[in-house]
Formats: sequence, C-alpha cells, structure tokens
Amino acid sequence: MIDLRSDTVTRPTEAMRKAMAEAEVGDDVYGEDPTVNRLEKEAATVFGREAAIFVPTGTMGNQIAIRLHTEHGQEVICESRSHVLDWEMAMMAAFAGCQARTVEGERGILTWEKIRHAIGPKIYYRQPTGLVCLENSHNMAGGTVTPLEVLKEIWRGAKAVGLPVHLDGARVFNAATALNLTVAELTEGFDTVMFCLSKGLGAPVGSMLVGSTKAIERARIFRKALGGGMRQAGVIAAAGLIALKDMTKRLADDHSNARLLAEAVAEQASAEIDLNAVETNIVIFDLRGEADAAAFCAALKRKGVLASAIGPHRVRFVTHYDVSREDCREAAGVVATELGAF
Amino acid sequence: MIDLRSDTVTRPTEAMRKAMAEAEVGDDVYGEDPTVNRLEKEAATVFGREAAIFVPTGTMGNQIAIRLHTEHGQEVICESRSHVLDWEMAMMAAFAGCQARTVEGERGILTWEKIRHAIGPKIYYRQPTGLVCLENSHNMAGGTVTPLEVLKEIWRGAKAVGLPVHLDGARVFNAATALNLTVAELTEGFDTVMFCLSKGLGAPVGSMLVGSTKAIERARIFRKALGGGMRQAGVIAAAGLIALKDMTKRLADDHSNARLLAEAVAEQASAEIDLNAVETNIVIFDLRGEADAAAFCAALKRKGVLASAIGPHRVRFVTHYDVSREDCREAAGVVATELGAF
Amino acid sequence: MIDLRSDTVTRPTEAMRKAMAEAEVGDDVYGEDPTVNRLEKEAATVFGREAAIFVPTGTMGNQIAIRLHTEHGQEVICESRSHVLDWEMAMMAAFAGCQARTVEGERGILTWEKIRHAIGPKIYYRQPTGLVCLENSHNMAGGTVTPLEVLKEIWRGAKAVGLPVHLDGARVFNAATALNLTVAELTEGFDTVMFCLSKGLGAPVGSMLVGSTKAIERARIFRKALGGGMRQAGVIAAAGLIALKDMTKRLADDHSNARLLAEAVAEQASAEIDLNAVETNIVIFDLRGEADAAAFCAALKRKGVLASAIGPHRVRFVTHYDVSREDCREAAGVVATELGAF
Amino acid sequence: MIDLRSDTVTRPTEAMRKAMAEAEVGDDVYGEDPTVNRLEKEAATVFGREAAIFVPTGTMGNQIAIRLHTEHGQEVICESRSHVLDWEMAMMAAFAGCQARTVEGERGILTWEKIRHAIGPKIYYRQPTGLVCLENSHNMAGGTVTPLEVLKEIWRGAKAVGLPVHLDGARVFNAATALNLTVAELTEGFDTVMFCLSKGLGAPVGSMLVGSTKAIERARIFRKALGGGMRQAGVIAAAGLIALKDMTKRLADDHSNARLLAEAVAEQASAEIDLNAVETNIVIFDLRGEADAAAFCAALKRKGVLASAIGPHRVRFVTHYDVSREDCREAAGVVATELGAF
Repeated sequence: MIDLRSDTVTRPTEAMRKAMAEAEVGDDVYGEDPTVNRLEKEAATVFGREAAIFVPTGTMGNQIAIRLHTEHGQEVICESRSHVLDWEMAMMAAFAGCQARTVEGERGILTWEKIRHAIGPKIYYRQPTGLVCLENSHNMAGGTVTPLEVLKEIWRGAKAVGLPVHLDGARVFNAATALNLTVAELTEGFDTVMFCLSKGLGAPVGSMLVGSTKAIERARIFRKALGGGMRQAGVIAAAGLIALKDMTKRLADDHSNARLLAEAVAEQASAEIDLNAVETNIVIFDLRGEADAAAFCAALKRKGVLASAIGPHRVRFVTHYDVSREDCREAAGVVATELGAF
Repeated sequence: MIDLRSDTVTRPTEAMRKAMAEAEVGDDVYGEDPTVNRLEKEAATVFGREAAIFVPTGTMGNQIAIRLHTEHGQEVICESRSHVLDWEMAMMAAFAGCQARTVEGERGILTWEKIRHAIGPKIYYRQPTGLVCLENSHNMAGGTVTPLEVLKEIWRGAKAVGLPVHLDGARVFNAATALNLTVAELTEGFDTVMFCLSKGLGAPVGSMLVGSTKAIERARIFRKALGGGMRQAGVIAAAGLIALKDMTKRLADDHSNARLLAEAVAEQASAEIDLNAVETNIVIFDLRGEADAAAFCAALKRKGVLASAIGPHRVRFVTHYDVSREDCREAAGVVATELGAF
Repeated sequence: MIDLRSDTVTRPTEAMRKAMAEAEVGDDVYGEDPTVNRLEKEAATVFGREAAIFVPTGTMGNQIAIRLHTEHGQEVICESRSHVLDWEMAMMAAFAGCQARTVEGERGILTWEKIRHAIGPKIYYRQPTGLVCLENSHNMAGGTVTPLEVLKEIWRGAKAVGLPVHLDGARVFNAATALNLTVAELTEGFDTVMFCLSKGLGAPVGSMLVGSTKAIERARIFRKALGGGMRQAGVIAAAGLIALKDMTKRLADDHSNARLLAEAVAEQASAEIDLNAVETNIVIFDLRGEADAAAFCAALKRKGVLASAIGPHRVRFVTHYDVSREDCREAAGVVATELGAF
Repeated sequence: MIDLRSDTVTRPTEAMRKAMAEAEVGDDVYGEDPTVNRLEKEAATVFGREAAIFVPTGTMGNQIAIRLHTEHGQEVICESRSHVLDWEMAMMAAFAGCQARTVEGERGILTWEKIRHAIGPKIYYRQPTGLVCLENSHNMAGGTVTPLEVLKEIWRGAKAVGLPVHLDGARVFNAATALNLTVAELTEGFDTVMFCLSKGLGAPVGSMLVGSTKAIERARIFRKALGGGMRQAGVIAAAGLIALKDMTKRLADDHSNARLLAEAVAEQASAEIDLNAVETNIVIFDLRGEADAAAFCAALKRKGVLASAIGPHRVRFVTHYDVSREDCREAAGVVATELGAF
C-alpha cells in the first residue's frame, strides 16, 4: 500500500528507534528528564525563542496555546477551515471557553485587512477578541503557505491593538522549506508556535510549543491539566531530537513528490485542481460534478493507493518520508487511470 | 428624543404598571407563584406547546436552550450574524462548551440545503453537530423573515438526521405578523422556542422558553444554575401577561413605521438599502463610501433622533411601541436631511 | 398557613408595590435606568464601596463574584455547608471552572487558622487557591454569625498572601443586626459582597453585588453572560430601594421570633438544638433517634405550619416579615405539641 | 541517590527499551497501531472487560472517566485526599464541570454507609450526584487498601441507586497484591478502571482505562479532545505490554521494602506512624510537634535519600522497581539516624 492519507502515518526511522532504546530518562513532571530537557532547549534554539515544551500531540499544543492566551468568554479569530476549528474536538469552546470568529482566507491565507474587520467592538456587553490563530502551511486549504510579508503585517497590526498571535505550525517546516526561510525567520512575530515532530518530520509521537519563558511556564500548568504530564518522556523525546535535527532538511523531496501527483491530477478532465495552491506536501482536488470522493478513494485503495476523502467531492493526498519518489510515480499512474475511468 | 436604537428601550404601559402593583405572587423557585404559573401556561397555549418557562432575559432563554439540547464538545449550526453568536457573550462556548458552525444565509435566511452541508461527518475524532439554531425575524440581517416553507424543509431535514432545532424568536411575533401566521403555525417544528416579552411587546423585563414538558423541566435546572431562579417573579410576569395578550396585535404598526423610515433612506444617494429586506420593525442601511456610522448617529442625535451604529458604515433603526407614526415621520425627515448633508 | 420554610417566601409590601408601579425606568443594559442607578448608588453607599450592581438573584451575584476573582482550574476555599457549594448548582465548577476546597467550621464559622491550612502549595502541577468565600450569617449552620474579630483576622491573613475574599452576605443585614454593627463595618475587608434584597428585606426579586469600580465593571460582563442583563429593571429595583432603606431596621423582630421558636423546641426531649447557635432568624434542630424530618414537617403542615426538612433528621424554621410575633407564638405551640407527640 | 519520592521515577527496563526499539507501529488515531491494539486487548483481558484504551497519563485516564460518566453541573463523590481531587489540576471542574463532594474515609477508605449520606437529594434546584470515584490503593492515605467486601457493598449500593463507580487504580496491582486477589476480582463491579503502566509497573509512559465497549468508545472521543490521540503510540505501548505481563508479579517486594522502612520509622520517638496503614509500597508518617517536613527531607537528601514532604509535617516514601532491598535497608538506616537527630 502507498499510504497518502496523511503524513501522520510515518513510522520512526531506525535512528529514532535506536535513540529511543538508549535514551537517558528521568521524571519529566519534576523537570528531570535530560532528553526532554535537551529537546526543549533545542526547539527553543531552532525557533529563536526563550523556551519550549514537549507535548504528546499537536492538538494538545494548540489547545494549551489557546487557553493560555485567552480567558473564557472571548473570541479567537481563525481561518474558516483551520485545524483548531475543524479537527480539535471543539476544545476551543469545551476547554478554553472561547468562541471562534471565522474568516475565510483566499487559499486559506488570512491578511491583516481581513483580521482587522473580525475584531469585535469594545463594548462590555459583547465578547472581546482574545487571540488570532494562524495555520502555516494550511492543511485543509491544500498545504498553502502564508508569505512572510503577509505575516509581518499581521504581527504589526495585532501588536498595535494588543492581540496575541499563535501559530498552528504543525507543518511550519514545510512552509519554511517552500519559502526558503528558517522557521525562526518565518515565525518571529508569533507569541507562541506549535510544531509537530511527527507528521513530515517522522517522529512517532510528539509536538512542541515554543514561546517566552513566561508563556511556557503557564503552558506546563495546562499540559498537566490536560493529562500531558508524562513521566519518562525522554524515550519519545529522543526520537523527536532526531526529527528536529535531521528530518527538517528533506521536506523539499515531499514537496516535489506532491507536485508530481498534482500534475498527474491536473491532466485529467474529471478532476479540478488549483496547481498554484500546491506549494508543499499536500494535494487537494475536487471531483467534478457529483462524483463521490469516498467511492473514488475506495477505487484507489483497490489499486494499492490510500487517499483521504475530505469532503463529499474532495480528495487529499499527503506526501511524506514513508512514500518514495518511486511510490509517488506509481501512485500518480494509478490516480491518472482511476480519474480517467471515473 | 425619538429613540430608534432598539425595541429594547420600550417602557411598560400603564396597564402593565397596574398589573405589577396588584400581582398575586409566591415563591417561584418552589413553583408557587400563581402569576408566573399563569404566564407560563398562557405562553405554552399560544405556541401550542406542553410547557413554558419564564426567564429574565432572551439571552438566558437562548443559552438554556443551547445547553439543554447539546453537550460540551459539540457544534451548533447558526447563521453567521445571529444573536446567539454575536451578542450572547460567547456563552455557547463558555457555558455550553459548544462551538459555532456558522453558515451565511442570504438576508440571514438559512435553508436546509445550506445547513445540510454544515453538518459534520460522523467520525469519532471530529466534534459532532448537536443543534441547529435559527433566528426569526433575524435582527442583524435587518429584521428579515424566514418563510414557513423554508422552515418546514429545515424541520423535516433536521428530524430525519436526528438534530434538534431551536428558534431564537426574540421577535417571532414580528415574523408571524409579517407572514400573517400565528406563532404556533410558524414555530410548530422547533424543539424549543425563545421569545421576548420585552422588545416589541413592551414588557419591562422577561422572556419565555417554550417546548415539551421534558425540555422545560431540564430548562428549570439550567435557569437555576444561571441565576435566573427569581422568587416573587409574579410582579414582572404580570406585565408579561399583558404583553402576551394585548401587545402582539399591534406590531403591524411598527412594521409600517419601519417602512416609512426605510423609504426615506432609500431616496438618499448617500445610503444603500435593500428595501425588500425591510419586512418587520428593523431598518438597516449602509452609508456609502467611507462615511462613519458613529458620526452619522451623533449627527442624528443632535437633531433628536437616536439610532445605532452596528458596523463601521452600518446604521440601524428599530421601531416600537414608544415611537408613534408621528415620531417616525419626524425622524424620517431628520434622517433625510442628515443623509443629504452627509 | 404560617410559612417558616424560608425568608425567600416574603411578599412585597404595599409601599414596594406602589414604588414598582411608579418607577422611572430606562434600558439598564445601556446604563440608562434611573431607578437601577439609584439603587446601585445607594447600595454602594450603605456598604461604603465604590460601586454596586443589581442582579436578579443571590446565586447570580455569588457566581459572578466567584468568576471574577478566579480563573478556570483554581480552588475556592469555602465552608463545607456553604450555600455556594450546596445550593448553586455546581456553577463554581460548571461556569467558573473552579474546585471547592471545603473546610468545616465550628457552627459554620471559618477562622484564618483553618483557612490557612487549606491553601494549596505553590507547585505548578497542583491547582492554586484563587479565592476565599465566606457566608455571614451562615444559613445551613443555623444562621450563625461570624464575629468581626474573626473576620478581621481572615481579611489580614488573606491580604498577606494575596487572596481575594468574597462574602456571600445573602443575610448580612441579619448578621450586622445580631452584632449591632453596620454592614459597612462588618464587611469592610471583603473584596466583594453579595447581599439579597429579597429574603429578610422583603423585596420580591433582586440582589446586589458591591465592590470596587473595577470589580463591578467586570461583574457587568458576567451578568450579561449569565443572562442577567435585564432591560427596564427599574420596576423591580424600585422595590429594592425600599427594602434597602426601610426593611433593614426591623430584623431584630425576626431574631426575637426565632428565639421564641428555638426555646419552644429546646423544651422538648424529642429534639436537639444548640440554643447558642440561634443568633439570627434561623432555627435548626435535630429530631432525636431515627425520627424522620419530612414526616415531622408533614405533621406540622397539617396543623398550619410550614417548615423545611433539610436533612434526614434535621428541621429548619426561618422567620421573616410575613410571619408576625403572633404567628410565631402560635407556631411555637404547634411545634411543642407535635414534638411532644413525635 | 536512593529515590523514594515516588514510584513515578522508575526507569524502563532493558526489555522495555528493546521492545520499544522493535515495536510494530501504525497510526493509532486511525486504530491501526498493532502494538497499541495488542496492549488494549491484553489490558481488557487482564481486567475481564470488553475494552481498554491507552492514554499518556493516569490523570488523563481519570479525567476521561469522570467526563464520560457525568455531565456539567453534577457532583462527584470522592475521598477527601484523593488524587482526582488534589493532584489533577481541578480538571473535574475545569473540564468535566463537576463539583467534588468529599467524604473523609478512615485511612482513606470509603464505605457505602458514608457514600450514601453524601448523595444529594433529588430536587431540581440542587446539583445531582453523577459519579462515585474511589482510589485503591489510596496514595495520600498511605497506600491503604480497600478490601473486597467493602467494595462489594459500594458496587451494590451504587448500582441500586443508579450511580456509576470509577476506580482510580493507579496502583490497583499493589492493592490486588496486598489482598492476594487478581485485579479482575478486585475491580469487577466498577464501571471503569484506570491503572498506570508507569509507577510500580515501571513503564516510562502510559496508563489504561478499561470498561465496556460503549464506555471506551466514548473515551476515545475525550482522549482526542484532551490531546491524547498520539500517532505511532506503539513505541510506548510496547513497554506497557511488558509492564503488564511481567512487572505485576514483583510488587510484593516493594511492599516488603516499604514495611522495612516503616518499621525503622516506628522505632523513632520523633515520628508518628500507623503501621497498620502500611499495606503496600507507600509509607507516610508525621514528624511530631512542629518539626518541618521539608527541612527533614533536605537532611535526608544530604545523606543520599530522596523523600517527599507532602504536608508541613508529613513525609512520604514510595518503594519501587528502581530501589532494591539493599537500597531500602540503607535508607532505613539513614532515616533512623536523621529521625533520631531531628
């Protein structure tokens, strides 16, 4: 099977497995796990921040961030297809007590001009805006990338009105690769950034939240509350260290593989795809007319290719470490055939 | 001052004041206030329901309904400018723990076709939809009215997929008046309906939630929780009884007055208004270009007319019992002059 | 019927009814109701505070206070039989997201020594204490009164460790009457005080929260959220003004009547009562052995006296404006007879 | 250092490390991780249940259980020093919206008689009881064990009144070892049981929640919400499998070591200990008079022994896999010397 459902399916490398077996560990709730401490220090360094915290999942990282920047009864401005809204179990409401104020971005890209209009008026009998939350690259918009200039304007604007800005950077290394920037450059103005060691970077488990010392101290409280205070977490942090050091450099391959798939799709009349939106490792396209995405994915599966139906007529491929150029070439052939027949 | 900011500003009539002074009362937490009991029975009858509960505000009525139909971590489908979303302090999140799934309706009117697409897929790792919440008439869309046929399709569709439907009927008597239907006819398929005794009906304080006996029994729990368990509430329920009996018949006057104002606006080039949207007692228009709504309202105020700036360039008038035909004629003149000069 | 179930059953006086009928009103959400404004100013003055806010119920006042002093995930120290814990629908958890840290006080009276030990250690992986909440007089402990000296030590201690202190003063005028102090003297060191205009003061509906301007500004936000933002609330505030001005002076009568009842109980071998605990308008006693409180209350009811069974073997009487000396004398006779026979 | 602070400090064994390196993995959010699936099946079997779910921490397991058995605004009956109350960040309130109703058990042991009295009356204006939560062995009461007969009465009683019962069985294998029962026998009547693979069983990370298929299906929802939906979790589940299979048999050694320490303490006049309470791997004692527990632990530390100050005058030792008989003998000597000198 060539598994293009998501980059979450990547399995740990041999180096990661070895590191896990040999990891030096301690009780991380007491701050005594040397491997976790090393990973947190490394992540802070890579992002040019004061501090970082290791969390079991990206969802936990995002929800900690939302909770720490807001209070119950506020609004969080986010894009209308963002992960924090669609795939985090409504915890923005159920845990942080906040309401989403959604804004539709072109190809998922929000601008300060759009955000500005979504900020509520300051009247005591209206809920105030507490946070702006971006996603870069933007998964459900097709892995699209918000450029640095657009971000700078948002950082500037938000700062001027006193609003914190969090980045759901689950795939921020993909965005940075696409823009040929360091993640430190691309995230400089965010108050906090969450990024995943799993997904494209291949670690089996784990994400990080980076920010100021003060923010991350508060994050520790909420991580404990959410049940993320693991003990000898060094065993998984060891894999995360390798993900962070070695796996961030190879993402261009995934992007090139995604391109290959996207172009195969674009040639077929039965599919509709915006090739300009394929900037990273995600390919999203629509089946024309009333063709059923689930049925199409089932057809692909019978030919050995796994994909996700992310809407009634929408299909998504995600490339990653566990699918090679060769796999993608093969998958592209299958996709072309199936689209042709659909 | 001719106060067109909102129909919430209406003051109790002489009959209401007299009724309040003479109200027979008891402890309503114990269910012993005869006037409250009478009002609740009357409201249930008018709406053709099993039961009703008296609450101090429409916000409390809506939030009780949202809480009782859902559980934490679900989604509530609502129109993107609805009152439950914009003006209820994010309590959908902060109290019910639910996330809004917003859908934009033409003139604020949702259809089953639109709602259907907003229902989330049934996957365990995605928050489920728990409730559909409509608003009729729709305040921020300009007092627009959802027709019975559209509602019937929504009721049918929601029932088929097992979703409850709540109506924020703060101004449902205005909607019924515009459609020449009874409120019982217009709300038949809703699981619960909230309507206000204040606003167009002129009571000083109070709203009602109507529904099945079972729903209203649960509503009593949440009313107590929210601090709405008033004791000798009969003193205000007495005014509510008059509102419900006598004041529902005169709303056509407010509608006709709103029309008068809307037409005065429509004649001015500096304003943009959709006359077809003026179906009840609300008039919303945009100032063209970059003209500032707050400044315009300030200008009106200097001439004795109060209006609301509900956006950077949007102005709202609401007609009600305390502004006469004569007042509206005078206000229309002021508005025309000021728009001409703006 | 002589209704001794609670002082919540009092009905408005003629003066109150008249005031309600004649009240000057406006839209209180906009801060324009002159009667509400007058009542809020008057309450602030009586308590020697900067500001006050009118709320429909004591529960709402307490829950607003708990919410505004804390954040989700903290602890609130309170007495183990306190109203905020036992009778406010777990809203401390469900709305404020806080956990109660209960301390048993002798006769319901907490001391700084006891509170001090209940404050949690400051470790990031333990929930912090956010608030101390007292109740004076203490309803379920039998209307007992915490003396000023005990309070002063609590205020001093809490201030030293930076903890806010809220008073559930539903019956603080009873406590002040018993101690022969003004409420301003008795509540000087609290950050916020909630007191009821209903109960002993006889208003049909309404309570107040008093505190600093800043605290009360935030309280307005949470009152709106909880659905307490009533419109022409002046109609009930008018009764509240009379309650606050005229009804606070007559509470000694209620206390004396409670004494009369307590002494009648104390003479009967079948009941157990701590006469020293009967300091205000509440009388609580135990039926000896396995005698059933509900059955005893039913027996009293057949003789025209209403009382509350507040435990399997516990009975409560509450005296108030609507039961005269004569009523209490008659009730005492009934109670003696029934206890004798029980 | 001989680390007796907690059994949370245990480090993975060589066998665990090897298993982690070789674990067969998949994406567990999609239910495709074979190692996780095997562990969940194994846990269900060991406890004689339909299903189990792997979670990163015991706190997450407990909080999922509390959330799934209750709804916001209910009460959870628990012992007054229980872990769910004292060490889970008030999430019972902040996530489940429930209030604790605490009952003090002798040596931490609750009985049905005590629980029964803590169940609230069924009145609409009072929060209902939603869950009974026990802890066995009971950490802060000194690792005490609730006997099977006591549990059986609680299961029977709770079932009769329709209340679910959850077990915080972080150390349930210790309890079962002490009673010479299987965990299946000891937990038969609980609706859900959480137990830890870390702590005495030595896995680096992970706990399990077991129960009916239906309960565990709902648990998956809340695990995802709390951010516990890890991807290739098989790498840590592999260690958990070894913990569950091999490490449960050796706990008697820890108990015997704890006994040794307890007896050394009991001989010293400066300490007060209830030897009958030392039933498992935990030893808690009080320093007499005003002696400071933190200072005493600091003194021990200088001699190479780590202990926890769990109160102003209370000290706790916990024995585990990483402290040998020899270590404990040495520690006992240090403790005796230091207590003698204190």
